[in-house]
This record gives sequence, C-alpha cells and structure tokens, in this order.
Amino acid sequence: MLSDNAAAAPSNGMDHKAKKPKTAGERESFMAVYDVLVNDILSGLDAHRLPENGRQWIRTMLDATIPGGKMNRGLTVPSALGSILKRDLTADELFKAQVLGWCIELLQAFFLISDDIMDGSITRRGQPCWYRREGVGMVAINDAFIVESSIYQLLRKYFKTHQAYGDFLELFHEVTYQTELGQLMDLITAPEGNVDLSRFSIEKHAYIVEYKTAYYSFYLPIALAMRLAGITEERAYTQARNVLLPLGEYFQVQDDFLDCYGASEVIGKIGTDIEDNKCGWLIVQALARASPEQRALLDANYGQKDPAKVAIVKAIYRDLDIETLYRQYEEESYQRITALINQVEDDLIPREMFVTFMNRIYKRNL
Amino acid sequence: MLSDNAAAAPSNGMDHKAKKPKTAGERESFMAVYDVLVNDILSGLDAHRLPENGRQWIRTMLDATIPGGKMNRGLTVPSALGSILKRDLTADELFKAQVLGWCIELLQAFFLISDDIMDGSITRRGQPCWYRREGVGMVAINDAFIVESSIYQLLRKYFKTHQAYGDFLELFHEVTYQTELGQLMDLITAPEGNVDLSRFSIEKHAYIVEYKTAYYSFYLPIALAMRLAGITEERAYTQARNVLLPLGEYFQVQDDFLDCYGASEVIGKIGTDIEDNKCGWLIVQALARASPEQRALLDANYGQKDPAKVAIVKAIYRDLDIETLYRQYEEESYQRITALINQVEDDLIPREMFVTFMNRIYKRNL
Repeated sequence: MLSDNAAAAPSNGMDHKAKKPKTAGERESFMAVYDVLVNDILSGLDAHRLPENGRQWIRTMLDATIPGGKMNRGLTVPSALGSILKRDLTADELFKAQVLGWCIELLQAFFLISDDIMDGSITRRGQPCWYRREGVGMVAINDAFIVESSIYQLLRKYFKTHQAYGDFLELFHEVTYQTELGQLMDLITAPEGNVDLSRFSIEKHAYIVEYKTAYYSFYLPIALAMRLAGITEERAYTQARNVLLPLGEYFQVQDDFLDCYGASEVIGKIGTDIEDNKCGWLIVQALARASPEQRALLDANYGQKDPAKVAIVKAIYRDLDIETLYRQYEEESYQRITALINQVEDDLIPREMFVTFMNRIYKRNL
Repeated sequence: MLSDNAAAAPSNGMDHKAKKPKTAGERESFMAVYDVLVNDILSGLDAHRLPENGRQWIRTMLDATIPGGKMNRGLTVPSALGSILKRDLTADELFKAQVLGWCIELLQAFFLISDDIMDGSITRRGQPCWYRREGVGMVAINDAFIVESSIYQLLRKYFKTHQAYGDFLELFHEVTYQTELGQLMDLITAPEGNVDLSRFSIEKHAYIVEYKTAYYSFYLPIALAMRLAGITEERAYTQARNVLLPLGEYFQVQDDFLDCYGASEVIGKIGTDIEDNKCGWLIVQALARASPEQRALLDANYGQKDPAKVAIVKAIYRDLDIETLYRQYEEESYQRITALINQVEDDLIPREMFVTFMNRIYKRNL
C-alpha cells in the first residue's frame, strides 16, 4: 500500500515567516493547470488519431486517478521554487512549476493504480479503486502505463527547449526506478497471505521507506524546483537529498505510528497495518525488542484479519512501550534533521525552505 | 495477446545479395551482450544498495522474461546499421547497436509480462507466464515496471554523451506510448468474455495493428539504427515510417491469417484467435462481407471456447472465401510496399534495406 499522504508543501519564500498554511488560491490555481494538461493529453491523442471510445476512456481514467488527493507533492514544486528564488514567481515560472508538480501527481497516480491491483485494495480516496470500476479490471495495468507515458508527453511539450530538460527526464527516470525498487522490497518482504516476520528488520524497513516513499515524495519535488531555478551544482542536490531522505523517513514513520495510535476521526481512516502484514516501523521495533515469548505471540498473531489477534499485537506494543520509543524517535529525528539542515550551504539552497518543510511535519497528528 | 513473433531482421549490407539467413554467430554475439547488460543492471542495483533477496529476484525475473524469444526486433538494429553504413561495423558500432537492440527486447518484455496478466494467459515461449510462476503473482506488475526502467538505466550508461541520446529517449517514450494506445484500443474493442462484433471494424483493426505492433516492432529498430548512423533529417524518418508501418501491418495480417490457416506443425502452435474474441484481420474482413444470416452466425459463434462454434466461424470464412481475399491482399501489399520503397530517397536511407526486410516477410508460412 502506498500512502496517498505527504507532507504539506513548504510555503514559498514570501510567506514562510508567517507559516501560512497552503491557501485555497494555490490549490485552485494548481487545479486550473490540471485542466490545461488534460486537454494537452487529449490533443495528443487526437494527433495519434485515437478513436473516440479510446479518447473517452482515457479522459475518464485520468479524472478518476489523478486529482482527488491532497496534491501536496505537486504543490511543493511551486512553493519550493518561491523559496529558492526568494521572490514572487512570474506567471510563467509559476505555470512551469505547476506543470512539474502535476507530473509528480501523474507519477503518483501511475503507482497508486498499480499498487491497488497488487495489494487487492478495495477503495482509494473514498472511491472504488480504478481497477475495481465497472468494465475496467486488468485494463487498469495498461492505464497505469498510459499515465506514466503522459508525464513524458507533457515534459516534451513544455520543456523540450528548456536547459534542464535532460535533467528533468533523468530525475523522473531515476526516481521512478528507485520507487519501483522500494516497492519490490516491500512486496517480497511482506507478501500478501504469507506472514514470516523473520524477513522483517529495521534495515529493510528503512530501505523500503527511503526507496518507496522518500525519493518521489520528498526529494523529487524539491529537486525539480532546484533544476527549474537553474541550480546546477551537483553538491546542492546531494545536500538536499541528505536532508530530504531522512525527512521522508521520519514522515513515513509518523504515518506508521498514526496508523496504529492515531485518532481515526482525525486521520480519516482506521489503520489496518497489523492485519495487512505491513513491514512498518512499529513491528520492526517490536521485533528488535521482543522476548522469545513475545516474539512467538507476534509470529502467531501478526498479519491476520482477526480483531482478537490484532489486540494481542497491540498489547505487546504496549508492553514494549513502543509509543515512548516513538516519542524519542520523534525528538531525535527533529534534532538530527535540524543538524542536517545546518550542513546545507545556505547560498546554494536556502535552509529556511527545509526548516519550514520540517516544521510542517513535526508532531503532526494527521 | 501480443505476438512474440517478428520479421526476421534484414541481413546487413555485406550479405544482403546472398539473402543469407541470420547466422548463429549473430545470435551468439547478441546473447553475449545480454550477459553484459544484465550485469550492468545488477551493478546498478548494488549502487542502490538493494538487499540480496531483491537482487536475486530481479536476476531471476530478467532471465525468465527477456531472452528466449526470437529476438528479431533486437537483431534488426545491428543488421540495419550495417545496411545503412554499407560496410562491416566496428566492434564499438556493433556493440552499441546490440545495446539498443536489447533495449527493444526489454520494451517487448515489459509489454509481454503485463499483457499476459491482462489476457489471463497461461504460457509464454513454452514456459508458464512470469506472473503464473510460484510466488510471483501480481508482483509481476512491478517487475514489468522495473524492466521498463532498466531501458533508461542502460541508455544512460551507454549513450549519455552520445549526440543522439535525446533522440533515443524520445523514440522510446513515443513508441512506448503508441504501443500503449494500441493496446488500449485492442483491450476495449475485444474485452475478455464480452463478445460484441459491432465494435470491430477494418479501420479499428488497422489502428490496433499499427499502434500496438508496427511502431515498436518495425519502425523502432530501424529508426534507432538510423539515429545511431547519424541520420538527422526528419524526412528520412517520415520516409522510413511510410514503408515500415504498412510492412508491419502486412506482417500482422499474415500472423492473423496463419493463426487460422497456418499448419500448426510449421507455426508451432494451434491458433485460438477465434475462441479468444480477437479483433483480427479475418473477422473484420468477414464482417464487412457477411450477409445478415452469416452475421447472425458470427455473432452467435465467435469468441467462445467451443470447437463446434469455431468450426461454424471457419465455415463462414470459407463461404466468404477469405483465403482468396488474403492472397489478393498479400499480392497487393507487395506491390504497394514496393511502390512505397521506391519513394524513399536512396541517398538518405538505402532502399535495399527495406527490400530485404520485405522479402524476408513476403509469403512466409512461419
């Protein structure tokens, strides 16, 4: 399962001191660009002489799979560009950043469509998963491909002559590959209906989180904004990665924590990571600390859709005081990431952008 | 169902007059490059710190899904490059052409892995389909993604500084998208278990064949060889496409014909296009010529796994003399494609390459 969650985007350089939450205007402006891009994709289909029923199919599919999420990854590109340039964006800069933001949202849709099939999920964003819609089924696999290909159609349309075009392509290729490697490790570490906790470990969990989530959700939006801003020094990207991958890990660990300890009326769903045999932060920490007796109980009760068994797992988490461990992790992460931010050369990329980003995430309960 | 067939590659410029069949040496040399490329992909995984079980999984998956076909698409790149340059290739030219050839084979594997899931196929190349192997299942979807991503890993490794690098990327993106559009039309025109012949038409069949097969099997290998040879004039690519798309259509129509009329001991399989509700050349021609009574029989008997019903469809094909129609189509195609080849500017791309290509295909029975 890929979370459709992501950190709120940092606000841009103009308003970061006020820690203003994302305005409705930013979202509206971003959504308006979605309409432009769907029309671009449809015009491209016309150029390919796609018969009308195919065109209709794709239009419905795009609308069902791309918008409707929180769009935080996509919104991060324009706000990060503002932070980097330290001024309001021109209309052209804003639009270009929004296009790149939507390309991340398309990448996300590509992953979510296929992820839902692989996980056998039922709903996504409160609707039936795309592959579960009437008449769709396994055609959804090819639909996911079409969404991925559309990224490159859009990049070519808007950036073919941009000096960073090659970098954009490489970033999307690389981050796509990294996410697929993380997804592979997740799938083979915790296969459906085959519980074997000996496959889980703190190291594997860290790998999965970094590769499956942190690269595309945290590094990609900032790296795209940096390329758009004309930053070419490779060490700027290394420094950004050094902050953003740990930040992404911290975010995902929060997600794992909230799945079990969050208030369902706040997070808007009832967590099922224990039932779903997820290789999450809580279980790998519990495994590292469990006595032989506790380990036997975890083996016998994890990954099964039985509320009594879930309760036994939660009781072990309580006995091991995983919640306190999490609070320590949270504090330690904040200190550690702050130190990493302080290692960023401020004249290469403004540290303030990372600080804002982290403050949006720290101690969130949603 | 995507056919794993493709025209034999044209021999290179040195031996085209002898119409020498592809030598064992060419295949051996091509296979040796596969080993190099798999090692490149695995080294890339090491750079990504992929845990050992992930690395093993990918190695097994690549070996199960990429080699084992006829490799005609891939082999076409080096032989076409020889035809264009009109000389033996240097070791470096040969290797680069083989790398591009393998990238096409990877693209093919990406499509076949997912196609088999979408079609619910059982075997591929005489083995269980990858998704049907023990412990694989829907993980195969992500495996297909990894194979696709590996194309771009290899292109970057070998061509990052090549003057045609951007063109290679664009070609792969564009042809991938075209194939996905063809696949979509095929899937929604002839959905599994939902026979409705009113969706079939000669035009739709032509679209599916062009987009799903001709671009990646016929245009792509030649276009890559042309880019590698340094051909930059856009009209050279238009002229190549003008020949290769009809040639690809002709090839696929032969495939459809042989599925029904070919000797199973020659083609190595028993055709099931009628049972499988395929939108193939024979049925769209039959529909265009059927009387109301014949149409009713086709509606009642096409797309069902019942030998008696298949026999009724075949009897209608006989009554409509579809075989003679095919022989006419074959002759007409030969004339038409010859005329198209004559429109190619020989100093841009040697016509001889297309002639050899066509002669390999014309009146094949395998």
